[in-house]
Amino acid sequence: MHDASPKTWSGRFSEPVAELVKRYTASVSFDKRLAEFDIQGSLAHAQMLNKVGVLSDDDLTAITNGMSKILAAIREGSFEWLLDLEDVHMNIEKRLTDLIGDAGKRLHTGRSRNDQVATDIRLWLRHEIDALIHLAGELQRSLLDLAEKHADTVMPGFTHLQVAQPITFGHHLMAYVEMLARDVERLQDTRKRVNRLPLGAAALAGTSYPIDREFVMRQLGFDAVCENSLDAVSDRDFAIEFTAAAALVMTHLSRLSEELVLWMNPRFGFIDMADRYCTGSSIMPQKKNPDVPELVRGKTGRVTGHLVALLTLMKAQPLAYNKDNQEDKEPLFDTVDTLSATLRVVADMMRGVVVKPEAMRRAVKQGYATATDLADYLVKKGLPFRDAHEAVALAVRYAGEQRKDLEDLSLVELGTFSPLISAEVFEVLTPEGSLASRNHIGGTAPNQVRAAIARARNRLEEA
Amino acid sequence: MHDASPKTWSGRFSEPVAELVKRYTASVSFDKRLAEFDIQGSLAHAQMLNKVGVLSDDDLTAITNGMSKILAAIREGSFEWLLDLEDVHMNIEKRLTDLIGDAGKRLHTGRSRNDQVATDIRLWLRHEIDALIHLAGELQRSLLDLAEKHADTVMPGFTHLQVAQPITFGHHLMAYVEMLARDVERLQDTRKRVNRLPLGAAALAGTSYPIDREFVMRQLGFDAVCENSLDAVSDRDFAIEFTAAAALVMTHLSRLSEELVLWMNPRFGFIDMADRYCTGSSIMPQKKNPDVPELVRGKTGRVTGHLVALLTLMKAQPLAYNKDNQEDKEPLFDTVDTLSATLRVVADMMRGVVVKPEAMRRAVKQGYATATDLADYLVKKGLPFRDAHEAVALAVRYAGEQRKDLEDLSLVELGTFSPLISAEVFEVLTPEGSLASRNHIGGTAPNQVRAAIARARNRLEEA
Amino acid sequence: MHDASPKTWSGRFSEPVAELVKRYTASVSFDKRLAEFDIQGSLAHAQMLNKVGVLSDDDLTAITNGMSKILAAIREGSFEWLLDLEDVHMNIEKRLTDLIGDAGKRLHTGRSRNDQVATDIRLWLRHEIDALIHLAGELQRSLLDLAEKHADTVMPGFTHLQVAQPITFGHHLMAYVEMLARDVERLQDTRKRVNRLPLGAAALAGTSYPIDREFVMRQLGFDAVCENSLDAVSDRDFAIEFTAAAALVMTHLSRLSEELVLWMNPRFGFIDMADRYCTGSSIMPQKKNPDVPELVRGKTGRVTGHLVALLTLMKAQPLAYNKDNQEDKEPLFDTVDTLSATLRVVADMMRGVVVKPEAMRRAVKQGYATATDLADYLVKKGLPFRDAHEAVALAVRYAGEQRKDLEDLSLVELGTFSPLISAEVFEVLTPEGSLASRNHIGGTAPNQVRAAIARARNRLEEA
Amino acid sequence: MHDASPKTWSGRFSEPVAELVKRYTASVSFDKRLAEFDIQGSLAHAQMLNKVGVLSDDDLTAITNGMSKILAAIREGSFEWLLDLEDVHMNIEKRLTDLIGDAGKRLHTGRSRNDQVATDIRLWLRHEIDALIHLAGELQRSLLDLAEKHADTVMPGFTHLQVAQPITFGHHLMAYVEMLARDVERLQDTRKRVNRLPLGAAALAGTSYPIDREFVMRQLGFDAVCENSLDAVSDRDFAIEFTAAAALVMTHLSRLSEELVLWMNPRFGFIDMADRYCTGSSIMPQKKNPDVPELVRGKTGRVTGHLVALLTLMKAQPLAYNKDNQEDKEPLFDTVDTLSATLRVVADMMRGVVVKPEAMRRAVKQGYATATDLADYLVKKGLPFRDAHEAVALAVRYAGEQRKDLEDLSLVELGTFSPLISAEVFEVLTPEGSLASRNHIGGTAPNQVRAAIARARNRLEEA
Repeated sequence: MHDASPKTWSGRFSEPVAELVKRYTASVSFDKRLAEFDIQGSLAHAQMLNKVGVLSDDDLTAITNGMSKILAAIREGSFEWLLDLEDVHMNIEKRLTDLIGDAGKRLHTGRSRNDQVATDIRLWLRHEIDALIHLAGELQRSLLDLAEKHADTVMPGFTHLQVAQPITFGHHLMAYVEMLARDVERLQDTRKRVNRLPLGAAALAGTSYPIDREFVMRQLGFDAVCENSLDAVSDRDFAIEFTAAAALVMTHLSRLSEELVLWMNPRFGFIDMADRYCTGSSIMPQKKNPDVPELVRGKTGRVTGHLVALLTLMKAQPLAYNKDNQEDKEPLFDTVDTLSATLRVVADMMRGVVVKPEAMRRAVKQGYATATDLADYLVKKGLPFRDAHEAVALAVRYAGEQRKDLEDLSLVELGTFSPLISAEVFEVLTPEGSLASRNHIGGTAPNQVRAAIARARNRLEEA
Repeated sequence: MHDASPKTWSGRFSEPVAELVKRYTASVSFDKRLAEFDIQGSLAHAQMLNKVGVLSDDDLTAITNGMSKILAAIREGSFEWLLDLEDVHMNIEKRLTDLIGDAGKRLHTGRSRNDQVATDIRLWLRHEIDALIHLAGELQRSLLDLAEKHADTVMPGFTHLQVAQPITFGHHLMAYVEMLARDVERLQDTRKRVNRLPLGAAALAGTSYPIDREFVMRQLGFDAVCENSLDAVSDRDFAIEFTAAAALVMTHLSRLSEELVLWMNPRFGFIDMADRYCTGSSIMPQKKNPDVPELVRGKTGRVTGHLVALLTLMKAQPLAYNKDNQEDKEPLFDTVDTLSATLRVVADMMRGVVVKPEAMRRAVKQGYATATDLADYLVKKGLPFRDAHEAVALAVRYAGEQRKDLEDLSLVELGTFSPLISAEVFEVLTPEGSLASRNHIGGTAPNQVRAAIARARNRLEEA
Repeated sequence: MHDASPKTWSGRFSEPVAELVKRYTASVSFDKRLAEFDIQGSLAHAQMLNKVGVLSDDDLTAITNGMSKILAAIREGSFEWLLDLEDVHMNIEKRLTDLIGDAGKRLHTGRSRNDQVATDIRLWLRHEIDALIHLAGELQRSLLDLAEKHADTVMPGFTHLQVAQPITFGHHLMAYVEMLARDVERLQDTRKRVNRLPLGAAALAGTSYPIDREFVMRQLGFDAVCENSLDAVSDRDFAIEFTAAAALVMTHLSRLSEELVLWMNPRFGFIDMADRYCTGSSIMPQKKNPDVPELVRGKTGRVTGHLVALLTLMKAQPLAYNKDNQEDKEPLFDTVDTLSATLRVVADMMRGVVVKPEAMRRAVKQGYATATDLADYLVKKGLPFRDAHEAVALAVRYAGEQRKDLEDLSLVELGTFSPLISAEVFEVLTPEGSLASRNHIGGTAPNQVRAAIARARNRLEEA
Repeated sequence: MHDASPKTWSGRFSEPVAELVKRYTASVSFDKRLAEFDIQGSLAHAQMLNKVGVLSDDDLTAITNGMSKILAAIREGSFEWLLDLEDVHMNIEKRLTDLIGDAGKRLHTGRSRNDQVATDIRLWLRHEIDALIHLAGELQRSLLDLAEKHADTVMPGFTHLQVAQPITFGHHLMAYVEMLARDVERLQDTRKRVNRLPLGAAALAGTSYPIDREFVMRQLGFDAVCENSLDAVSDRDFAIEFTAAAALVMTHLSRLSEELVLWMNPRFGFIDMADRYCTGSSIMPQKKNPDVPELVRGKTGRVTGHLVALLTLMKAQPLAYNKDNQEDKEPLFDTVDTLSATLRVVADMMRGVVVKPEAMRRAVKQGYATATDLADYLVKKGLPFRDAHEAVALAVRYAGEQRKDLEDLSLVELGTFSPLISAEVFEVLTPEGSLASRNHIGGTAPNQVRAAIARARNRLEEA
């Protein structure tokens, strides 16, 4: 059971709570953020009490009006939050009672702060998930626009950060659109489990008032009620599941950020970033630093850390509510804030990416990216694949020793590795030929990239 | 790109891989576990190559027969795994080629080990998820049977590990059934994202062969294909999402275990555990230790640790495949093994729980569990709730000083706290009255507990 | 390299930093906390510049006076922190230049914000470690006082939360004193590595000015200089090592808290807690909740989470400074705040613990705690230990079936398990006899507990 | 208390341990690794028992001889480990008793498996720490040799992965030598706390036998005894502290690995790696992949994961020994194995690094690395630093637009940014001049790098 303000339990206690303890245990400094949802939940609860005959019409009207004033005060910043009243619930309830008298005292009938806070946080998180899904959509759109412009732009595809095969920059970006699409799926799946109503569980066992939980559920737009009161007040799965989903989004963005930082390095020079997303140095006049992707990468650990905090929090907790659970809020709040700010800034930043196709093409040409295509050429001429692979491997080794690329070798030089090679081989060694040949769903052929972009846009429209 | 056996790339290399490096990088010691799924994937791939005209009927027959022999050898334990062949894929392919000659060499056409291993691990994990869902169902059944027997058994409900209100033991157990039901939902949601086909992505960019990915998808029972080749070979979301879901299951079981350990403590004595689930001490003759729940609790961190390992693994990895990803397997394998063994042992153990209702009832009677009911009694007699709360708080304080329970106070003593109290108050102070009054969905009233059990059984039947 | 205020690098840039980016990357909202240490470091740097002839006497005087004014303003809360100036360093430097003109601009000679911030945070952390060591000492004193009062108080020692052997409550508390002593050792060891000077590393490579790093080191009380400039600006080991040490302290306090919560449960009733450390319930009049230990337990995951955040942050970061590193501060700050508040509140709370020796003794008597002593008795009478163990095991089983304790069995009953048992056996079954026999360093004999307390007090005095 | 083999506690139990439970709880599959240390501890214990008169000379001789045979059998691999005997301790004790009869049964006098296993694992970990310190020294030597060869080799120093200032490759490598030196310090500090003797704590409370713990301490080379018996059997700080230190080593190696991978990318081409440390691709004939550093990077999360597992394990565990603690071993074992293999392979691999100085120099020349030096040049000519910074910033921007480097600008072009620039400016723009000017402890001037190498070699010699 949550604590109440000193006066509410004084009969049992022979001395007031120590100041040190009050500061250590108070949550109002952070949980006031739930205020709008606390009020939303209280109003639905009051309407239900009125419907089942526990609360009079007059009381309901008084509560509705009182809450309306409180909400206005909170929104305009004039509401005074008191540490002595400990949490968001008692601050609002106390103010309500100051405003409307006894009716305010009747609001808490048939509920407890245990089910109240669980309801508040689910209402809040549902709201935030919807906002995050929207932001993830905006980022996908930002990536899609860039991918569309570069559906044909050749760049080296890396494995092991070594040049592997030619791909297009649009194809590369589409990998992140796929990741984000899965992230959105996960947020939607999480939302189903967030969107269940704990209210009615009271302290832990339910209440003796003739409550109508389905009514409250409908009023608040929940999909279902939590079907066990002990579980309802102590379940923090939704916070953990959400934070795990958020950690995956951040992990994806850390991968994109790593690549942006690499691509901006002058050795790569694959992209430039609009000045407004970069910072300089007070000492080194030439510096233009990709601060935003670096910080995104750095913030990844933050969310993983919150996930660990929440899992540790719940480990081996006996039922039902324990004060430990108050520690669920700050990690969850910071996860939402971090993810929300990051999605927004990355979506905006991607619109400031300047692609340098010639640098990408240069990189393709220096890494023997079409060696696989040369092997395939030999296979088509009749050589077994293993022999073809070996012949090309030797050619690459020779070219490396000559500090040349494959295409810089003469036909005579190439011929020493296989008599099957003739002049048309140089067509095979073009990146464009390589790209076009990977023409199936998921492949890097430009028309496949365009088809993938179209599918992704449809998916976003339908959502 | 995955490594291949030394011979397959020797043309490019001037010296063989160092022994130290071979041992450090080989994965066959653990990935051989994927063998059946590797073969399953290879057969579907071969059928597709045959269908699109890249592989002859004779080759397909040879491959099918060869694989059948290999599978038999693996199952009977006679297959020889070689570290020099590095991983499960090369071990099987090499053996296939030894058995059937050139046809074996043609199997790898149009794929790479990057998409091959991603396919294997998804096939394997899908299989394991189905098994885990079944085991979670068995545990739920085990809990439901016990809950049904104790739908009326009174025990103290705790908040803050202090006696709060009476509940039934059946109601308490149903909280865990709810948690497990959510766990199963999460596993099912994860399965959707596991069950997508990466094969066809080849090394990273797709392949120039006219492959039919949808055919392979259908052959292997996948729901969809991975729609971007770079993402297909580098995505390890499914491993992370699964491990997060598994960490939550373990967290739930750690909570149950904590309670079992508490309840077996002689101070509680709420339950006893059949001897076959306990161990003794070689020194202390009286000891009977609840080793199983303690170990379950201890293994919780193990899975959280694997989750952290996987998130750290993927942080800031540039696309596409990097060797880092080989490190996805051991945490994932151990997560499945830990969770599977734990679900099985806990389901079995719960059938060995001996409930001691009289100890539970004694505990209810000593913790002022019906104080809330006394307050409600006074409210019904007309006292405002705050006054009622205060009167009862003082009564509790007095009783505590007398080292008595509320019900041990005389009517005269009780009367000093409120003149409204009369003889029928002692009925209110019974746990049964308290229980029966919490009669709504999610409440602890025995008929609600029975209804919850029935709903859960239906849900399990339908699954 | 850290960012500088827009004006400082504008020549290179064609547009200002976007508002969104500014908010995302600014750190002044949290790093202003380092202000005093930033000034301390700047003054030592200025003195060194003056000493080596790079800064005039007049400039040094101006800087000293200017900083003195700024420090006063910060302390009285009148300093205006500007987000546009991004971080604590630029806010202070800009204000200094406003106050004293060009001399302010010369302060940054031969340093960079990379080595400046690394110096600030080490100065700050050194200060906090000293404070934490003091607080850990206070907690040890608080535990020692309680242990001393209860050096003889019998309680059941648990293994597996089953009654094992009698111990004293003082002995139990001394386990935590030992843990805290190790925690202090770890903080001291960490301090050695915190207390090294990065200043002089400049941006990453050192500076061309003739700086005297040893002078600055001595001025600031550092033990050594960081001997490699790249390492100096990018090393965050000290933050990780400190947070790991802090996570261990919290883990220890979580164990103590778990026990306090258990002991306050009415089934145990081993202790009571002064009302000022507890809270009640607004609904349940009888509740008195041990909120503080619950919250301590809950905050444990928070610090473990910060540790994970920091390790993830540093994983695979290339040298030297990257913006990612800005993310080191918030986890570190919150770790210090959490640990500091927790040590303080627990030290205070332990002084409010009321021990209930009779409940502890009752628990010893009901768990067959002296079964080992009975076995030892039989061994002394000549029975082989294995036979003695077996005889006692059977006696315990019989007593359990009779719902009796060992000491409640009659001599006749006991005699059925071994003919060697005679009347004086009942002395062996006393907790006091058991305790006194464990009389060696580390054992629970009361005089050993007193000796351990004396040693611990000495250790604290000497520190 | 640890479990014992079924027969040792059968009197208390009415049925044997279930097979499922036996498999779930047995540890011999992994703890047999402690066998040598278990025997070492047992022999010291036996000698002590003999010394204090509890064990006869004949028994001691029998135990010594028996253990000698067992040790030989274990070393030659002929010892049969039985799951039914559960753990390493019971397997050895049972075999000893089979070999020497009753004397074997007397070995366990005055100890318990709780203090026995704690002793074993500390002996083992002390041994491993010493080996790891040696391996970390070997890696430092490997780095020092390479650094010495390249104390003058110019490369670009990066911040934000953007070219910052010229440094030498030797200087860069020395940053890792510094990190490893701190790692060794941490391992040494951890060793102090590992090297304390728990034996004598018995099950949890000490023992009634007149044991001499200091004698055992000296026999086993421990620095101190654990001074509280409850703490002695339940303390796992040393495992956590060690794993945290190991996670830091892995984090450092992940940073080095990230850089090696980058430097091997053809865009950088700063280094090549001997073929024996690389692998190729079965598909792409040109590939040469830096598998080893990638895998090192990937294994970093593994150790962080183990750290989280151990912290979670200990969170909120009540005193004293609980079965949870059995879960300390596998994470610890794997941490040691991972770290040991990684240090060894990296030390070896660094000897196979082929440096390409011309590529490094090219990179310095294309990133405006000496822009700071140009600004300093202008300052020396009398321009205020802010003006100098601005002039150079504009010059860099102009050069960038021209796709030229600073040194490629003509004197006329440079002159447009400041009239103070004259012909000798081109000397300032050389990397060598820049390097030489950073001539203080920690700076990148080649003579400072050589001095740092000499200091590090001395430190290693003295260790």
